[in-house]
Amino acid sequence: MADVDTTIAELKMLVRQFVEERAWQPFHSPKNLAMGIAVEAAELMECFLWLDLPASYEAAREAKKREEIADEMADVFCYLLNLSNVIGIDLSEALRAKIVKNAVKYPAELYKGKYQV
Amino acid sequence: MADVDTTIAELKMLVRQFVEERAWQPFHSPKNLAMGIAVEAAELMECFLWLDLPASYEAAREAKKREEIADEMADVFCYLLNLSNVIGIDLSEALRAKIVKNAVKYPAELYKGKYQV
Amino acid sequence: MADVDTTIAELKMLVRQFVEERAWQPFHSPKNLAMGIAVEAAELMECFLWLDLPASYEAAREAKKREEIADEMADVFCYLLNLSNVIGIDLSEALRAKIVKNAVKYPAELYKGKYQV
Amino acid sequence: MADVDTTIAELKMLVRQFVEERAWQPFHSPKNLAMGIAVEAAELMECFLWLDLPASYEAAREAKKREEIADEMADVFCYLLNLSNVIGIDLSEALRAKIVKNAVKYPAELYKGKYQV
Repeated sequence: MADVDTTIAELKMLVRQFVEERAWQPFHSPKNLAMGIAVEAAELMECFLWLDLPASYEAAREAKKREEIADEMADVFCYLLNLSNVIGIDLSEALRAKIVKNAVKYPAELYKGKYQV
Repeated sequence: MADVDTTIAELKMLVRQFVEERAWQPFHSPKNLAMGIAVEAAELMECFLWLDLPASYEAAREAKKREEIADEMADVFCYLLNLSNVIGIDLSEALRAKIVKNAVKYPAELYKGKYQV
Repeated sequence: MADVDTTIAELKMLVRQFVEERAWQPFHSPKNLAMGIAVEAAELMECFLWLDLPASYEAAREAKKREEIADEMADVFCYLLNLSNVIGIDLSEALRAKIVKNAVKYPAELYKGKYQV
Repeated sequence: MADVDTTIAELKMLVRQFVEERAWQPFHSPKNLAMGIAVEAAELMECFLWLDLPASYEAAREAKKREEIADEMADVFCYLLNLSNVIGIDLSEALRAKIVKNAVKYPAELYKGKYQV
């Protein structure tokens, strides 16, 4: 598992280099990158479009579909890291802060097995 | 910058614990999580909806809006980590593999300053 | 059923008047309206986010949820009509043309009960 | 302009026939159709992804791009009509009701030339 010893900063650097080598920064306004994330999220969603919920677990195990899913997840992540680079957001900090807010909003004892709608 | 020494695996664990404390796993089929990513991506996009591209950089600097943007980015990231947990995807590996594919698809010398459509 | 005797042109006019009364045309570039459609589509999707497929039929029958769904569908439709106005697309013609293309792409005898992925 | 004398009900019927000829109803739960709308909305948005706002007007005039845009708009509309058929929503009524709500929420004199965020 590369996730065990890969930091967010390393992946941000990888994305930054890819963009700089192509001089794509002028295209990457925050608005465009937010759109890019949404476009890739829709492509990820399309992998599961006509499946019922149990079949979506199976799809994630089937080799060809699994690669497609991993690729689309990578695309979403790539644009997210790109946006973090452009506007200088610390993703780890943002995630931790949001989880604290969510823990207050959804106390474990109240929401056990139940879901917000 | 917490991103410098935070690994993907640490953040995955954080998300896993949050979900397990609430026993929310039955809701988190791959299909539902892909939808969740798309829903949060749309909320992120909404932060920039009526702005032109230069104004989207300014929005990211204005304190209140910046927190909103960071929160929505965290939501996208949270569902992405959650999906990685559920279907066992190594995000760092998936990102690196996708960047290699993209480097072949968009050679730096050909795409310098130009963009795919 | 108002749908029986309401034309697309009547609804386009309704949307056009609403926009003109507020002088909102400068905000409504094609790019922004396409984003608006995607944002509203995500809100519609959110009505069904944590439900399995059979439960999504039930949700559409429950009064409060049904109104929410109808409202989100109206929002998607409103931006779609707005975009049609701005760039001068005849929606009925566009739909008919696309259905002809789809009928060629998915011949009824080949796709009976089966789905494209 | 076919929009002048085409009713919503006619287009709903067109979509219904297309679906029935392929026996695709089992795939078309409200949840799946809402996802379908969001997927097509993202494809429409992709037509404008890297453009600035003025360039998005130009794109809509260029023949090849215009057809692509019209096709994606038709896809969004097609799923919206399909969902209306499945859950029995009168789209004209839903649109009129939503515009009345919006007129209350955004009084013309207060929002003239200004936009909600």
